[in-house]
Amino acid sequence: MSQSGRRVVLASRPVGEPNASDFRIEDYPIPTPGDGEVLLRTIWLSLDPYMRGRMSEGPSYAAPVPINGVMEGEGISEVMASNNPKFAKGDIVAIRSGWQSHALSDGKGLRKVDPNLGPISTAVGVLGMPGMTAYTGLLEIGKPKAGETVVVAAASGAVGSAVGQIARIKGARAVGIAGGKDKCDYVKNELGFDDCIDHRDPNLAAKLKAACPNGIDVYFENVGGAVFEAVFPLLNPFARMPVCGLIAQYNDTQAVVPNWAPALMRNVLTKRLNIRGFIVSDFAAMYGDFLRDMSQWVREGKVKYREFVTEGLDNAPSAFMGLLKGANFGKQLVRVGPDKV
Amino acid sequence: MSQSGRRVVLASRPVGEPNASDFRIEDYPIPTPGDGEVLLRTIWLSLDPYMRGRMSEGPSYAAPVPINGVMEGEGISEVMASNNPKFAKGDIVAIRSGWQSHALSDGKGLRKVDPNLGPISTAVGVLGMPGMTAYTGLLEIGKPKAGETVVVAAASGAVGSAVGQIARIKGARAVGIAGGKDKCDYVKNELGFDDCIDHRDPNLAAKLKAACPNGIDVYFENVGGAVFEAVFPLLNPFARMPVCGLIAQYNDTQAVVPNWAPALMRNVLTKRLNIRGFIVSDFAAMYGDFLRDMSQWVREGKVKYREFVTEGLDNAPSAFMGLLKGANFGKQLVRVGPDKV
Repeated sequence: MSQSGRRVVLASRPVGEPNASDFRIEDYPIPTPGDGEVLLRTIWLSLDPYMRGRMSEGPSYAAPVPINGVMEGEGISEVMASNNPKFAKGDIVAIRSGWQSHALSDGKGLRKVDPNLGPISTAVGVLGMPGMTAYTGLLEIGKPKAGETVVVAAASGAVGSAVGQIARIKGARAVGIAGGKDKCDYVKNELGFDDCIDHRDPNLAAKLKAACPNGIDVYFENVGGAVFEAVFPLLNPFARMPVCGLIAQYNDTQAVVPNWAPALMRNVLTKRLNIRGFIVSDFAAMYGDFLRDMSQWVREGKVKYREFVTEGLDNAPSAFMGLLKGANFGKQLVRVGPDKV
Repeated sequence: MSQSGRRVVLASRPVGEPNASDFRIEDYPIPTPGDGEVLLRTIWLSLDPYMRGRMSEGPSYAAPVPINGVMEGEGISEVMASNNPKFAKGDIVAIRSGWQSHALSDGKGLRKVDPNLGPISTAVGVLGMPGMTAYTGLLEIGKPKAGETVVVAAASGAVGSAVGQIARIKGARAVGIAGGKDKCDYVKNELGFDDCIDHRDPNLAAKLKAACPNGIDVYFENVGGAVFEAVFPLLNPFARMPVCGLIAQYNDTQAVVPNWAPALMRNVLTKRLNIRGFIVSDFAAMYGDFLRDMSQWVREGKVKYREFVTEGLDNAPSAFMGLLKGANFGKQLVRVGPDKV
């Protein structure tokens, strides 16, 4: 076993789209666990759009990563050594240990992963934060009723794919939006959405309208930008809009399009829309319900998922830059280390 | 008694601010009630900002007034003759009979007014639609907790004054926004708000910030425009925003300010805001609770109100144009006829 670990730190704050130069890859000595601590070896790193927000300063729900700090993120790790009675060598855990190969933990925020529920990578995917984001936002805010129409973008991604499939389980019509024919075919044919529209289609608005003949009752907002503008005129009275992400806007530096904030507010009033932002931890109390329902749905084949694996931590920055552009097809993971050493 | 009635019809659809020429005043023969009908004589006409929306075409929660149609509105009337067993001559009723001196009704939508609850004009004010808009929007969507800060604009008006006073009853801090020193003094000294800011103050944003040292937990949105832009940066995480009106935008024809829709959505996400439009009829089931609580609070002096009376139906158009500019000071009423003939 090497005595050096590998990590990705934030070298500079990106202006607009992140570049390779905003990241720096470093070696560092693998630390030794002290009293009550465990040493962790990262197997999977999850890459998620919210990370773009952590790269910038400015008000958000969480502090930014400091310059020269290890990039934040959740991963799946193996306990290599333990001075903590709650964890044993060989345990598989999920932890926000960042973009690095090894980390210490005092056990706080460490969540044991049950390998019987599915492949351990699903603990940062369909059975983890993205799946729970879909489950809680859709059921607690979106509240789809049977026969209603639910629209979600990034529909082949970790969150969007779960949103549409849960909507179908609840008897609603699911219409996805995704980038390109392959993803749209997958969303319709594999995931069972009622329809899926390519967001690159120059007639996005007209196509979406045709796919939603009864309007839109729930728009699960995870992208923002042009998709939102296509969705907006189709929202029905009393439509609900859980907002968990705005990936299309994350790289925005300045708005140069016509101001439609007044129109937005006018529609909130005339259609009695309900727009509500959330992050998954707001619904932490639902974790038990989520894991029970979602793992059952996955076992029964009612919720399918797809993983998109990038090999090696050194490729995490380029994988992340690709994620922001939709280059991934399924849940973006980075294979940091083997399942077993 | 004259055989001619008087009414105000919509002559043309205003572009931007309504002008006198958008209205036409007409005489018409007072109708005779048929089987099951009652003849009504209008005593009070209520003027409310939502009426601006009814003057324009375009999607809304209600159809527009047709050209040459009688302007819509609710008033307080006396039953002059009745062929309907549910109503007797002399009954006082509230009805959406429009801007006219006399009307027929088959009894549908006719609501008897109990003169023991307060002056009959309050049935279109603090004990009517404006009061219930404040009550339902604040309690069902705003949900102020003790110690939280509630901000409302048009704070000396029919809805805003009730919002702040109910917020105080619930133990919250109430900060009003109103036009001019007289209104602000009234809001603070008579209505008991904790503070009130003049929206004409060039330092509105800074003054509002100083008045809300702990941020804003509930913004009851009834004006939109510049006030919303001052409120927006002060919203706390998990702030709630019931939206029942956007009077500052009603005359807008085109938006020429910077586009801040993306910023709005970004804040919805990062602060987990809940923005929800409503109209009072969405909460019709709460009418009993509202009337019980509000009439008690009025009797106990916990909720005060102020009426702003314009004499004569012929002056209704100018009173309405004034209302859109904040020329009224209190609930805008038009005295159409005497209490008794």
